[in-house]
Amino acid sequence: MALTTKGRATRQRIIEGAAAYLRGDEPAGVTLDDIRAITGTSKSQIFHYFPDGKEELFLAVARHEADRVLDDQQPHLGALTSWAAWERWRDSVVARYRAQGRHCPLGTLMGQVGSTPGAHEVVSTLLGQWQAHVRKGIGDMQAAGLVRESVDADRVAAAFIAGIQGGVQVLMSTGHVGHLEAVLDTLIDYLRG
Amino acid sequence: MALTTKGRATRQRIIEGAAAYLRGDEPAGVTLDDIRAITGTSKSQIFHYFPDGKEELFLAVARHEADRVLDDQQPHLGALTSWAAWERWRDSVVARYRAQGRHCPLGTLMGQVGSTPGAHEVVSTLLGQWQAHVRKGIGDMQAAGLVRESVDADRVAAAFIAGIQGGVQVLMSTGHVGHLEAVLDTLIDYLRG
Repeated sequence: MALTTKGRATRQRIIEGAAAYLRGDEPAGVTLDDIRAITGTSKSQIFHYFPDGKEELFLAVARHEADRVLDDQQPHLGALTSWAAWERWRDSVVARYRAQGRHCPLGTLMGQVGSTPGAHEVVSTLLGQWQAHVRKGIGDMQAAGLVRESVDADRVAAAFIAGIQGGVQVLMSTGHVGHLEAVLDTLIDYLRG
Repeated sequence: MALTTKGRATRQRIIEGAAAYLRGDEPAGVTLDDIRAITGTSKSQIFHYFPDGKEELFLAVARHEADRVLDDQQPHLGALTSWAAWERWRDSVVARYRAQGRHCPLGTLMGQVGSTPGAHEVVSTLLGQWQAHVRKGIGDMQAAGLVRESVDADRVAAAFIAGIQGGVQVLMSTGHVGHLEAVLDTLIDYLRG
């Protein structure tokens, strides 16, 4: 659907309003009427921008939240070129998820949109971009002679992604950030050699 | 509740029947009547053994599934005393979760029983026991002079648990086992030094 500048702005306003609302609540019981009321839009506007209704809107919100996950780690994630940068990135990840605590807006949304191809694509895209940043950081450290050449950058970047996901999952079920810290610190130690 | 030997056997039969049934299906729509039909028990029997009803039964099933998670990794997990043992354990974890694929019986059950204290206790107990086994393995390797003393066994054991949880989570959303393999291999490499 080709949108005018004004149309794009309205669509974005709906997404951001819905995201803010869903972040503060359990989205299971949230209806399109709630979203209409919060964002001050009409039913026909909602269906103009999201013809497939609630699932399409929730998916757009999930994509918006996924972008925030990476934004929250910048500028560190995009410039992992020194050990100090790795430590700052590590701290920003821990701080972000400690603040988030047991409530994961993206995870809850994914639970709502379920196992649709669109939902899988949001997760794959996020994890792929995240991993590419870490992969590039390891490559940059190798180019600078700070990480040994024998380190398999692809494999270790995948290990970071798995570790962060699992650390956050443990945090969400136990309330403790220790596992997230442990896996980040161990993998950075591995890079230091 | 003190049960006779026969009572314990009946209770266990209900749990195992329910577990097998829930493993093959999405439990969201499963009712106590379904469980009664499958296990050939009466309503009064179900409520005798599980006075709080469905949630209590599902929690007992979750506990049963959590025990299976560790059993499936034995005898390797309990005797991580050589590099060959670590590799066999690594392979058994990957094989277990590859076979399970996108469907995680314990995860789905936990989604059903939600964030009750009982549900958190099942997860904490499982992760704690799992981590204690890995912790003991690292300690045994250090005692045998196979892992350097400077390795923080508690921290690395926590990193393994986070990494496995995250690797399985990525497997469930992408269908690929690569992240699980990457984090296990990287952490074992870290232990090898």
